[in-house]
Amino acid sequence: MIKLYYMPGTSALACHIALADSGAKYEIQKVDFAVSQQQSPEYLRINPKGRVPALETPHGVLTETPAILGYIAETNPQARLAPANDPFQIARCQAFNSYLCSTVHVAHAHRMRGYRWADEPEAIAAMQRKVPKTVFDSFVVIEEALADGPWLLGKDYSICDPYLFTLSGWLQADGVDPVRLPRVLEHHQRMSERAGVKRALAEQGL
Amino acid sequence: MIKLYYMPGTSALACHIALADSGAKYEIQKVDFAVSQQQSPEYLRINPKGRVPALETPHGVLTETPAILGYIAETNPQARLAPANDPFQIARCQAFNSYLCSTVHVAHAHRMRGYRWADEPEAIAAMQRKVPKTVFDSFVVIEEALADGPWLLGKDYSICDPYLFTLSGWLQADGVDPVRLPRVLEHHQRMSERAGVKRALAEQGL
Repeated sequence: MIKLYYMPGTSALACHIALADSGAKYEIQKVDFAVSQQQSPEYLRINPKGRVPALETPHGVLTETPAILGYIAETNPQARLAPANDPFQIARCQAFNSYLCSTVHVAHAHRMRGYRWADEPEAIAAMQRKVPKTVFDSFVVIEEALADGPWLLGKDYSICDPYLFTLSGWLQADGVDPVRLPRVLEHHQRMSERAGVKRALAEQGL
Repeated sequence: MIKLYYMPGTSALACHIALADSGAKYEIQKVDFAVSQQQSPEYLRINPKGRVPALETPHGVLTETPAILGYIAETNPQARLAPANDPFQIARCQAFNSYLCSTVHVAHAHRMRGYRWADEPEAIAAMQRKVPKTVFDSFVVIEEALADGPWLLGKDYSICDPYLFTLSGWLQADGVDPVRLPRVLEHHQRMSERAGVKRALAEQGL
C-alpha cells in the first residue's frame, strides 16, 4: 500500500492529485504543521528532512515532489501520466518539474520561509517584498511553455500539470495577479474541473 | 550531435562529467558569464532562462541539471549511469538530484546571487552570512546517505555522483570546512580520481 504524508497548502497536493489520477489505491496522512508534527520524532523517522510530501512505498520512503511524481507515473503506466519510451520527452517532463521545484517553489518560499536563508527580520521582510516580482518572473517561462497547450507538455496531460496547478494556486497570495498570466490561469481552471483534482482537494478538506 | 553549454564553476560540470562518463560523442561551448554572454540574444534563443547548463540534442534543447543528467543516462544505457527497470531506485536517484538542485544549490546560491531574492544590500549581506550554516545543514542529510557508499546510491555509481561532486566542490568557498563532512570529503576525493572527472575538468581548463 502507498501512503502519502501531506499538509494542506503544500506541494504535497501535486502528488495527491497524481495519485488520484493514477487509479492506484492509496492512503493519506496529514502531518499537522500547526503543531509542528513535521519535527516530531515519529515523523522524522519517516522523513528526516522534516518536510512534506513523503511517500511510503512497499520498498521504502520517497521524498522530493518531482521524484514522487515520477514514481507514481512509472508504477501506473496505464494512467499515462508521463511520456514513455522517448528520452527527450521524458527529460522535458523532468526539466519542467525540476524548474518548478528549484526556481518557482523557491521564489515562493521566500514569502513564508525567508528564515531559512537569513536571520534578521529586516532581511526576511526584504525577501518578502521581492516575492511578487520573482514569482511573476518565474512564471513568464511557463506562460510561454503553455502556448501550444492544453497541457504543459502539449496535447498530453502529465505529472507536470498537477505540480503547476499546485504552484499557480499560490500566485494571488504571492502578490501576483493571475490575470497577467492568462494561459496559466486558464490551465488552472481547466485543472480544477478534473476528477483527480476534485478528489484530492476533497480528501484534504479543501 | 550533443552540445553542452557551460560556464566553469557552475553545475554544468555535473553534466559535463556525465557526458564524459557516458562514452558518447559531445561538444562543449563556453557561455562566458564575465561578458554576460548568458544574456546575449544568441544565447537566449538557445536557453530563454539565460542560465547554464543547456544541452543541445537532435530533438531540441534541454535545461535543468537533473533533467540533462537523466537524459544522458537514458540515452547511454550501456554506461549504466542510473538505476534501470526499478521504479523505486529510479525515484531515489531522482529524489537525490532534486534535493541537490532545490535545497543544496539554492542554499549555496544565496552567497553569490542573493540579488535574485532581495534588492537591499543589507538583506543580501544577511543572506551571505547564513550560507555556511544553511549549506552545512543541507549536507548533513547527504553525509548520512553516504553511510553505505562508496557511491551515493550505494555500490553503483550514478548521475547523482557527479552532481554531488560539483556541489561539494563549493563547500570551502561557502564557508564550510569539508572536514566536518568526512564521507562527503572522501566521496569528493574518490570522484577526483575518475577518468570522466579528469577529462571534464581538463576540457573546462580547470
